[in-house]
Amino acid sequence: MLKAPWVLLIVDMQNDFVLPGTVLCVAGAQATIPAIAYAADWFRARGWPVVYVVREHVADGSDVERTRLGLFRRYPFLVPGTPGCEIVSGLEPRPGDLRIVKQRWSAFMHTELGWVLRRMGIERIAVSGTQIPNCLRVTLFDAVCHGYEAVLLTDASSAQTPAVARHNRDDLRQIGVECLSMHAFAVARDAEA
Amino acid sequence: MLKAPWVLLIVDMQNDFVLPGTVLCVAGAQATIPAIAYAADWFRARGWPVVYVVREHVADGSDVERTRLGLFRRYPFLVPGTPGCEIVSGLEPRPGDLRIVKQRWSAFMHTELGWVLRRMGIERIAVSGTQIPNCLRVTLFDAVCHGYEAVLLTDASSAQTPAVARHNRDDLRQIGVECLSMHAFAVARDAEA
Repeated sequence: MLKAPWVLLIVDMQNDFVLPGTVLCVAGAQATIPAIAYAADWFRARGWPVVYVVREHVADGSDVERTRLGLFRRYPFLVPGTPGCEIVSGLEPRPGDLRIVKQRWSAFMHTELGWVLRRMGIERIAVSGTQIPNCLRVTLFDAVCHGYEAVLLTDASSAQTPAVARHNRDDLRQIGVECLSMHAFAVARDAEA
Repeated sequence: MLKAPWVLLIVDMQNDFVLPGTVLCVAGAQATIPAIAYAADWFRARGWPVVYVVREHVADGSDVERTRLGLFRRYPFLVPGTPGCEIVSGLEPRPGDLRIVKQRWSAFMHTELGWVLRRMGIERIAVSGTQIPNCLRVTLFDAVCHGYEAVLLTDASSAQTPAVARHNRDDLRQIGVECLSMHAFAVARDAEA
């Protein structure tokens, strides 16, 4: 069983959230692909786990939030087996990476993430992906609630606009979530080693 | 058993969050007391439930978030039996009001709120109190996750600054949470009657 001090979460980097022209496209997401790929390789090189957190919905929409159901019925999104549900090109999972499926914003809500992290002895979580005000923010709030140390990787995360990203990072710092670039994160980990 | 279409949540309007000079004081909270009192009376007059959601911590801090534990050890907050834990003057609960105790930001996290609302047949939640970026926001996210219709009462909720309140309302609208003044909310309910 892998034991590691940190885990990297890569959240919602699926075509329906990232590719221009999709109904849920996050404007800033595509530009973060190289930074997330770099972060994932940095974790893998240390033998630290990389977890892909993905959103999926059944084709009839029965597990979609009430506030998005009208949109889903017109333009179904994140249905397994469709191209929109796949991880975006450039971030292909590697052997040994883990995968957590969710139906809501938080990676912890009604998923096995907490059990998997406990088994690995992990108490510290680095979050990347999209988008900062929704999935990343509530995942980070839940991480703090459950007792983890939590970091947002600023250059490996995105929102619709730089202003939205900035306001949300300000709020996250207020609850004790560090917001660091991947390089600053790496320097801090090397300093601990 | 009370059946009602809407519930009013009054979140964290305790002295330690509201009174100037307390370590967790939310700058905008005290000014909202009249609007929250008005909202509570409006709900009570219709026989619709009013739920006080409060945060409490044990005196040794064992249930405090890791990111706030240092602060708690220097300045304990929200400990039952201390004045700081009491509901702020001007918002005293009335007979028939309900009370939910939480240790985290969301009113749903590890509380009986969902069971109580189901028993009352409630699918629609109006949120008031403090503060918008933390407890109110994650409670509203959780409300949407669990399938409720959710509204933030704008004049009955607060943050450290008007800008923080505004940015968070913008984000909440993006996930389908209506942000209405108490008067606009009342007009909308009257129009449905």
